[in-house]
Amino acid sequence: MSIRLAELVERCGGELIGSPDTQVTGIAPLTEAGVSHISFLSNSKLRAQAGQSRAAALIVSPNDDALVAQTYTGARIVTKNPYAYFARAAQYFEALTAIVPAPGVHPSASVDPAAQVDATAHIGPLVTIEAGAVIGAHVVIDAGCYVGRDAVIGASTHLFANVTFHARCVIGARGILHSGAVIGTDGFGFANEGGVYIKIPQTGRVVIGDDVDIGANTTVDRGALADTVIEDGVKLDNQIQIGHNCHIGAHTAMAGCVGVAGSAKIGKYCTFGGAAMVLGHLTIADHVHVSSGSMVSRSILEPGQYTGFYPLAKNSEWEKSAAIVRNLSTMREKIRSLEKAIKTITNQASGHKDES
Amino acid sequence: MSIRLAELVERCGGELIGSPDTQVTGIAPLTEAGVSHISFLSNSKLRAQAGQSRAAALIVSPNDDALVAQTYTGARIVTKNPYAYFARAAQYFEALTAIVPAPGVHPSASVDPAAQVDATAHIGPLVTIEAGAVIGAHVVIDAGCYVGRDAVIGASTHLFANVTFHARCVIGARGILHSGAVIGTDGFGFANEGGVYIKIPQTGRVVIGDDVDIGANTTVDRGALADTVIEDGVKLDNQIQIGHNCHIGAHTAMAGCVGVAGSAKIGKYCTFGGAAMVLGHLTIADHVHVSSGSMVSRSILEPGQYTGFYPLAKNSEWEKSAAIVRNLSTMREKIRSLEKAIKTITNQASGHKDES
Amino acid sequence: MSIRLAELVERCGGELIGSPDTQVTGIAPLTEAGVSHISFLSNSKLRAQAGQSRAAALIVSPNDDALVAQTYTGARIVTKNPYAYFARAAQYFEALTAIVPAPGVHPSASVDPAAQVDATAHIGPLVTIEAGAVIGAHVVIDAGCYVGRDAVIGASTHLFANVTFHARCVIGARGILHSGAVIGTDGFGFANEGGVYIKIPQTGRVVIGDDVDIGANTTVDRGALADTVIEDGVKLDNQIQIGHNCHIGAHTAMAGCVGVAGSAKIGKYCTFGGAAMVLGHLTIADHVHVSSGSMVSRSILEPGQYTGFYPLAKNSEWEKSAAIVRNLSTMREKIRSLEKAIKTITNQASGHKDES
Repeated sequence: MSIRLAELVERCGGELIGSPDTQVTGIAPLTEAGVSHISFLSNSKLRAQAGQSRAAALIVSPNDDALVAQTYTGARIVTKNPYAYFARAAQYFEALTAIVPAPGVHPSASVDPAAQVDATAHIGPLVTIEAGAVIGAHVVIDAGCYVGRDAVIGASTHLFANVTFHARCVIGARGILHSGAVIGTDGFGFANEGGVYIKIPQTGRVVIGDDVDIGANTTVDRGALADTVIEDGVKLDNQIQIGHNCHIGAHTAMAGCVGVAGSAKIGKYCTFGGAAMVLGHLTIADHVHVSSGSMVSRSILEPGQYTGFYPLAKNSEWEKSAAIVRNLSTMREKIRSLEKAIKTITNQASGHKDES
Repeated sequence: MSIRLAELVERCGGELIGSPDTQVTGIAPLTEAGVSHISFLSNSKLRAQAGQSRAAALIVSPNDDALVAQTYTGARIVTKNPYAYFARAAQYFEALTAIVPAPGVHPSASVDPAAQVDATAHIGPLVTIEAGAVIGAHVVIDAGCYVGRDAVIGASTHLFANVTFHARCVIGARGILHSGAVIGTDGFGFANEGGVYIKIPQTGRVVIGDDVDIGANTTVDRGALADTVIEDGVKLDNQIQIGHNCHIGAHTAMAGCVGVAGSAKIGKYCTFGGAAMVLGHLTIADHVHVSSGSMVSRSILEPGQYTGFYPLAKNSEWEKSAAIVRNLSTMREKIRSLEKAIKTITNQASGHKDES
Repeated sequence: MSIRLAELVERCGGELIGSPDTQVTGIAPLTEAGVSHISFLSNSKLRAQAGQSRAAALIVSPNDDALVAQTYTGARIVTKNPYAYFARAAQYFEALTAIVPAPGVHPSASVDPAAQVDATAHIGPLVTIEAGAVIGAHVVIDAGCYVGRDAVIGASTHLFANVTFHARCVIGARGILHSGAVIGTDGFGFANEGGVYIKIPQTGRVVIGDDVDIGANTTVDRGALADTVIEDGVKLDNQIQIGHNCHIGAHTAMAGCVGVAGSAKIGKYCTFGGAAMVLGHLTIADHVHVSSGSMVSRSILEPGQYTGFYPLAKNSEWEKSAAIVRNLSTMREKIRSLEKAIKTITNQASGHKDES
C-alpha cells in the first residue's frame, strides 16, 4: 500500500514542492528512511544529513528548505513545524491499516438495559456497563473494561482493555484511557479519632475534558465533595497518581510515575518529569516545568524550570557527600568560627598598626 | 430527602442544643453550607466564620461552643471531635442514597461450585471465584474481580471492580479493596547462580485484618514462607507496593506511591507521606511519621517525624547546589586548610608577641 | 507427603552424604527447620548454628561441609551454591502439591476463532484472546486476562489473573506475567504544536525473551517505531514503568517502583533498587548496580554501585541541612572570602617581615 503526496498534503496541509504523484509507503526517521519513505527534518542541526537522505520525500521547515534543496532531489513538503506534521502524517498512515472495531456490543459483554450505548460504539468482550451510563458515538471500549453507573464517555473516546471508569465520572471527546487505568476511585480521606481512621465518603466526580490521554495503570481519585478536574488536552503517562480534588490545567503533560497529592491546583502548559511528586493543596502556575525525580513541597507561582533531586555518584563518593550533608550545620559552625578568627586577627593586625 | 437532627444524634451521638426537629438535607464545609445544610467547625481559628454560618446546624467542640453560640442562632451538636463526627454524619447521609447491591451471583460470573458464597453476598458481572474460596456475609464483589483458591473475604468487605485477590489470602471484616489492587502476588525472591536468577517459590499468604482499606492499583506480595501481615485499621492509598513478609502495624496509614521492600516491620499508628520508600528488613517503631518523598534506609526506633528529600529550587540554582553537593568533600578539605592556616597565623602572631 | 533424598539429588544434583532413604517433607530456614525438614546453609557465618540444626538433612557448600560435619549428624547434600539449590529444591516441593490447571479453554472465555491456542494450554474463565494470537504449549492464562491481536505467548509461560498483553507483542518461554501487568501499551510520544500535543502513533512492539518475570501492575510501553526489548532472564518486580524503545539486557533485575524513561539502553546483569529512576536515552553499562531511590540522570559507562538519595534525618535536622543545601553557593562564597582574607593576612605578614 502506498499513498500519493497530493493526498497527504490535502489531508495534512503544507506546501508541496515536487511531483504530487510521488508515492510513499510509510514514514521513517532520517537515518532509517528508505527510497519509498517520507522522512522529516525536525532539528536544523541535521540539515546536511537531510540533504543526503534516500527518502522519496522530506518534510522541512521554511528555514531549512533552501539549504536542504541544494543537495536533496526528492519532493519536499514545507511546513512550519515538521515534527507536528510528522505526527499527523503518521496518524494518517496508521489509520490506513488500522482495524476499525465494528459497531455493536459483544455478546459476552454485560450491559445494563438502563445504559445508553450509541449505535456506532464498539463494546468488546466481557465489558461491564452499569445502569445510566452514556456511551457516545464511535466510542471504543475494549475487552474487560468496567464503566460505572451514570458515567459518561464522550464521542470517539477509546478505552483500552481492562480500564475501570467509575460511577458518575465524565470524559469528553477523543480521549484515550490506557489499560489498567482507574478513574474515579475513592480519594484518601479520613478523620482520625484516637488514632483510628474514619472514612469520609468521597462523593465528588472526576470530570475530564476533550483530547485527554491517561496512561496504563494510572489512577485518578474522585473528589471528596467537589470534583477532580482534568482539563482539555492533558496527557498523563503510566503509573501516575492524581489525588482527590486536584485540578490540572489544559495541555499539561506528566511523565510516568508522577504523584500529585489531593487538592493541588496545577496550571496550564506545565510539564512534570518522571516520578516528580507534588504535595497536596499547592498551587502551580501555568508554564511551570518540574524535572524528573523532584519533590514539589511548596507552591510555584512563577513559570520556569524547577528541580530537586540528589545528584547520582559512585556509591563510595555518595557516602562521603551524604555524611557531610547530614552534618552541614557543623560545617556552617566551622565557617563561622573561621570568620570570627579572621576578624580577630585582622582587628589585632590593624590594632598593631594603630599602635605602631 | 432530609433528616431530623434527632435522628442524626441518635445514630452518631453528641449533645444536641436546639430543636430536634430541625431538618437538614446534607453536610457541607463552613464556606459552602446553605440554609438546609449541617456544617462543622473542626478548626478553632474559624470560630468567627462559624458564628456567621448560614447552616441550619453546626457540629462544634465543647471548647468552641460558647463563642460560636454568641452569634450563631441555629442548632448545635456538641461533640469532642467535630471532624470525626462530620465523617460519621457524611457516612450516614451517603448510606441514605446509596444503591445497595442486591444479594446473589450475577449470571455472567464464574463461580466454582466448590466455593462458598454467603447468600447475602453480591457477586457482580464477570467475576471469577475459584474453588475453596469463602465469601462472607454482605460482601460486595464488583465486576471483573478475581478471587483465588481458598481465599477468604470477611463479612461486609467490598471489592471494587477489577480487584485481584490471590489464592489462600485472607481479609477480615469491613475492608475496602479498590480497583486494580492486587493482593497476594508472588514476592520478588530469587537465588542467583552465576548471574542467572532462579525463582524461589512464594508459598506464604497475605493476611489482612479488619477495617483495612487498600487503594487502587496497590500491590501486596504474599510471603515467601511465612505470611505478609497487615493489621486492623491500616489504610493504604493508591499505587503502593508492599513487599513479601512485611508486617504493617494497626492503624498505620500510607499515602500514594509509597514503596515498602520485603520483610520490613512497620509499627502501629505510623504515617508515610506520598512516595516515601522503606528499604527491606528494616524496623520502624510505632508512631513514626515519614515525610513525602523520603527514603528510609535505616531502622527508626524512636517515634517522631523523619524527612529526607532534596529541596526544590529553580533549575539554575539547583544546578549550582547540586554541583557543590557532588564536591562537598572538597569544601570540607578547604575548611580544614583554612583552619590550619589560621592556626599557623595565630601561632606565629603569638610567637611574634612572645618575641616582642 | 514426603520425598526421599535420593529423589531430590537425582532431580537437583549435588553430592549426597548420608542415607539416600532419608525422608523429608519440606524445606525450611535453619532457625525454623524441624526434624522432618531439609534446611540449607547459605551463609558461612551460620556454620555453628547449622551444626546444631534439628533438620533431617542439610544443603551445604564444600567449604562449610567439614566443619558442619563435626557436630551435625543428619544427611548432607554438598553443592557449590546452597541457596540456588534451596530455590530448586523449593520449586520441586512446590510442584509436588501444585494444582496443575487442566488443558483447554474455559467456556466463559472469549477466544477468537482466528487465534491459535495449543491443545496443552489452559485458558481460564473470562479471558479474551483476539484474532491471530498464538498461545504456545503448556501456557497458562488465568481469569480475566487479555491477549491482543497477533500476540505471541511462548511455551510454558504463565499469565496470572487480569494481565493485559497487547497486540503483536511477543514473550518467550517460561515467562511469568503477574496480575495487573500491562505489556505493550502506547508509549508517551507527542509532538507539540503551539502548546498542544499531537499524538505520535506507537507502532512498535514489546519483544520479551525467555525466562522473564514481570511483576504485578508493572507497565511496559511498546516501541514508537522500533521495538521495546527485554532480553532473557530479566526480572522486573511490581509497579515498574518501562518506557518505549527501552532495551533491557539479559539477567538484569529491578525492584519495585522503578521507572525507566524512553529509549534507555540498560546493560546485562544490572540491578536497580526500589524506586530508582532512569532518564530517557541514557546508556547503562553491564554490571551496574543502582541503589534504591536514586535518580540516574546521566549515562553510566563503568560497572559499579551508584547512589543518589538525600539521607534521612529527624525532620528538625533535615530542615537545617536542607536550608543550608539551598544556600550552598553562599557557603562557597564565604569560604572563598576566607581564603582571600587569609592570603591577604599571610601576604601582609610576609610583607611586614620583608620590611622588617
